[in-house]
Amino acid sequence: MSSLFLRTLREDPADAEVPSHKLLVRGGYVRRVAPGIYSWLPLGKIVLENVARVVREEMNRAGGQEVLFPALLPREHYEVTGRWTEYGDTLFRLKDRKGGDYLLGPTHEEMFTLMVKGEYSSYKDYPVILYQIQTKYRDEARPRAGILRGREFVMKDSYSFDLDDEGLKRSYELHREAYIKIFDRLGLDYKMVFATSGAMGGSASEEFLAPTPTGEDTFVQCAGCDYAANTEAVVLAAPEAAAGEAPPAEVLDTPDTPTIETLVELLRSRGMDIDASGTLKNVVLKTRRPGEDWELLVVGVPGDREVDLDRLAGQFEPVEVAQAEPEDLARQPALVKGYIGPQILAGLGVRYLVDPLVRPGSAWVTGANEQDRHAANVVRGRDFEPDGEIGAVEVRSGDRCARCGSELTIARGIEIGHIFQLGRKYADAFGLDALGPDGRPVRITMGSYGVGVSRAVAAVIEQSHDDKGLIWPREIAPADVHVIGTGKDNQIEVALEIAGELEAAGLRVLVDDRAGVSPGVKFTDAELLGIPTALVIGRGLAQGVLELRDRATGAREEIPHAEAVARVLAAVRS
Amino acid sequence: MSSLFLRTLREDPADAEVPSHKLLVRGGYVRRVAPGIYSWLPLGKIVLENVARVVREEMNRAGGQEVLFPALLPREHYEVTGRWTEYGDTLFRLKDRKGGDYLLGPTHEEMFTLMVKGEYSSYKDYPVILYQIQTKYRDEARPRAGILRGREFVMKDSYSFDLDDEGLKRSYELHREAYIKIFDRLGLDYKMVFATSGAMGGSASEEFLAPTPTGEDTFVQCAGCDYAANTEAVVLAAPEAAAGEAPPAEVLDTPDTPTIETLVELLRSRGMDIDASGTLKNVVLKTRRPGEDWELLVVGVPGDREVDLDRLAGQFEPVEVAQAEPEDLARQPALVKGYIGPQILAGLGVRYLVDPLVRPGSAWVTGANEQDRHAANVVRGRDFEPDGEIGAVEVRSGDRCARCGSELTIARGIEIGHIFQLGRKYADAFGLDALGPDGRPVRITMGSYGVGVSRAVAAVIEQSHDDKGLIWPREIAPADVHVIGTGKDNQIEVALEIAGELEAAGLRVLVDDRAGVSPGVKFTDAELLGIPTALVIGRGLAQGVLELRDRATGAREEIPHAEAVARVLAAVRS
Repeated sequence: MSSLFLRTLREDPADAEVPSHKLLVRGGYVRRVAPGIYSWLPLGKIVLENVARVVREEMNRAGGQEVLFPALLPREHYEVTGRWTEYGDTLFRLKDRKGGDYLLGPTHEEMFTLMVKGEYSSYKDYPVILYQIQTKYRDEARPRAGILRGREFVMKDSYSFDLDDEGLKRSYELHREAYIKIFDRLGLDYKMVFATSGAMGGSASEEFLAPTPTGEDTFVQCAGCDYAANTEAVVLAAPEAAAGEAPPAEVLDTPDTPTIETLVELLRSRGMDIDASGTLKNVVLKTRRPGEDWELLVVGVPGDREVDLDRLAGQFEPVEVAQAEPEDLARQPALVKGYIGPQILAGLGVRYLVDPLVRPGSAWVTGANEQDRHAANVVRGRDFEPDGEIGAVEVRSGDRCARCGSELTIARGIEIGHIFQLGRKYADAFGLDALGPDGRPVRITMGSYGVGVSRAVAAVIEQSHDDKGLIWPREIAPADVHVIGTGKDNQIEVALEIAGELEAAGLRVLVDDRAGVSPGVKFTDAELLGIPTALVIGRGLAQGVLELRDRATGAREEIPHAEAVARVLAAVRS
Repeated sequence: MSSLFLRTLREDPADAEVPSHKLLVRGGYVRRVAPGIYSWLPLGKIVLENVARVVREEMNRAGGQEVLFPALLPREHYEVTGRWTEYGDTLFRLKDRKGGDYLLGPTHEEMFTLMVKGEYSSYKDYPVILYQIQTKYRDEARPRAGILRGREFVMKDSYSFDLDDEGLKRSYELHREAYIKIFDRLGLDYKMVFATSGAMGGSASEEFLAPTPTGEDTFVQCAGCDYAANTEAVVLAAPEAAAGEAPPAEVLDTPDTPTIETLVELLRSRGMDIDASGTLKNVVLKTRRPGEDWELLVVGVPGDREVDLDRLAGQFEPVEVAQAEPEDLARQPALVKGYIGPQILAGLGVRYLVDPLVRPGSAWVTGANEQDRHAANVVRGRDFEPDGEIGAVEVRSGDRCARCGSELTIARGIEIGHIFQLGRKYADAFGLDALGPDGRPVRITMGSYGVGVSRAVAAVIEQSHDDKGLIWPREIAPADVHVIGTGKDNQIEVALEIAGELEAAGLRVLVDDRAGVSPGVKFTDAELLGIPTALVIGRGLAQGVLELRDRATGAREEIPHAEAVARVLAAVRS
């Protein structure tokens, strides 16, 4: 540490909100260069490389082959898939000296597809899994939380190429197993959650989330079974449909009831047995494909639920979704604010989606599309037919699991991995076929799998720190042991001697050999830096006694000088 | 090889000019994505990583500490040093979603200076050497030769920070030694050449060039001493000045002599003992600082020499230099084409530089700045005074070494490394000071050192290949041994068995276990891929005989099956 390029800070950086950001900066692991763009200092670089090594080892074990693509990519291939436009402002675009359009790769599906197409031609070539650990670029609207959501970051992305759906499932399963090993080795607590609602039927997409209150993603987990899903994808248990056919729809005079609350109050005052959950609320939104105009969209949810715009946004991406403004509504005068019902939407050509809680066959009180009027017994499938379903309601703790009926709870987490059965989207775009055994082309099916390498560093810290500093899991710690000479008499000399022996035994050692620095400062730095095991050569040395410290438990133990190397080795290898 | 993501090609790619480009593509090591932008396939990625590992190990051994900067950098810091503009079209520039200006880092002097300024404050902190192995971007006008001159490439750049010139010299020397070890380990033949003419006095800058006819750089080496320099920097022995004072300058009528040839012919016909080397040729050029207007420049060289514009361009960079056009000359009517002399240039305010061959005190026949007139006995320092010297003449084989007078020869090479005593330019720009022991600030002095990591891969190949393919030096080969089962009977089975034993012994093994591929194809592929040692399990297997092949020498030896592992280990570890 007398020559290590490291200066620790006592104060949290002013712009830091989350523990990983504060501690990585205070511990001298990273420094900010621009919003969402960081440099890695020596200790940080070691940790980042350690995470990459774990990912690489497990990807190789799963049969992945490592390649490396450029970050600077020509526009043409992303034009083929539409992502040049779809990515919107999130894509860093630039021109070269000849005016050619380029982008900084946010993800490399196009490039991998083309690479395989360039090399492989026969069904005998498949399957193959390729991956890279590479720097990616996304111009996030709100880069935040240090390296948790950066604009330049390190990611492992891999892609599987298979001849059929069975093969894709195997490749997906290989990744699932590799990811479990990776995140176990990184010492992360994580949940695998369904990332698409189709997941109830298969498992087309799962996210690995590290639960922490500072996470950007919300997910639900069931108290009764192992179901977990991100809130975008969650499927809630819908109430049982009433038995028998509902009576014909009927229009009611409901003066001055533009809100669900006033409507329910009026109907109950007339003796109807109804609450907000029996009404169908229709919220007018608008959507926009990149580069196109806004279009109206109406979303129907039970009247006791709110529409969760973030949840919708996640599912619509790259299509934008927003609240409709008065001027949008003005273009459809048939939509009467406060009294909108789905009965006329198909006729108006307005797209209508319902939350799955609005089950087929269910009957509702909803707007009659006239001022001061509602309609009762409006039945999905009889009186209106939505254009589709989408998880739209704001999920609440206490909602019921569609699998087992138990209560769901909501938590926050950091997305550290994502596995996704991509299917044939990119193979279709680029015509990636294998010549089959019968001489006919077979369209390849792909999976796409990501691990946030730099993000994982932050996720580990969010889950493993205390008020004194970082607490690294052994596998990715910047050193195995921190040998601290407290600086009097021959203590530093002995520290260097023991450090040499530990290095000779194969350990990675950080030795605090700084002269003129107080023991208190050295201990504070050691706790901040967070190396799992510390060996203190201090006052006890004269009596042949050293101290072994465990950063995670805080345990301290006096050990004989003569046993120091053996005891440290035992602690590190335990 | 039955599952390796690799397809070799029999034909050279159409766009490839140099052996490394042809062979890297044919061997399935790299693929082109855009001009000067390449992807690395599995074998290529291993080689690239091997080079990086060698560089990292030697940099660490020299006391360097590894960090990692972003490639995406904000404009502001490069504005401070003027390089935002100076880099011209070579800089990739882009805007983020908020309109902020960014660049893709071509080199990181600014960032390293700021990083050290951010962490260090006291003289006790110094010296420090920081480095990174990172992806860099330069929008080359003519990306060429595959990965030899790319627009996205991997570079090791390091920077030393010292309190004084003595410290800088030590840091420079540490790098020099580290580079020697690096390039030795990479198996490169290389020359260290002076890169600035100041080098005759000290050694402010040296390049490591790998001699090869395909190299972009030209350099000279002395047959008599160890002097070597790139042609930009070379210092040539100038002829001895004539003894005694020259007679006063005298104007001669020299009708119809706009060229040196016609002039010399006329003067000789009048009985003068003169040849072209006694005349002073003044060539009108123009220079332009980035973002400014063109300015005239006249360069004087002996009349028997040509001006080397490339040599000048290298020294003027980032200032552009070009031949003056008739319209440029028209703005200075006093410059009479074919009859220009330096006598009036200072008065005209035109900058005048001479090659060092035009020594102080030397006398010349040159233009008299009138149509059809020249002047004789025009003496530097008496009749004209240049604004400075610059190495301008085209260097020729047979020119004399300024150190020892022996003949110089010219060769071509690839720049694989560069070490440079940068001095205080960047420390001045950002105010990088250390608080000295006396409480006064000490301005830090820096060195800048680069190794082209991806370029080194190509340089190795330019020096090490034959008409059959690549010949990797052991240290960076994608595998230690290529075990080839030729595909009949149990030959593949035995190949896999031996490969397993070799791997267990710690070797990196590529095994050709492809069924249905002929021995000829396998041998051709093995020669193309270039792994140093091959073990062939072929027809001899039935008699217990295998074949050991050495790629570099072409030697083949029959060995007993039972000794295979031991013999391969011996070959690899020899």
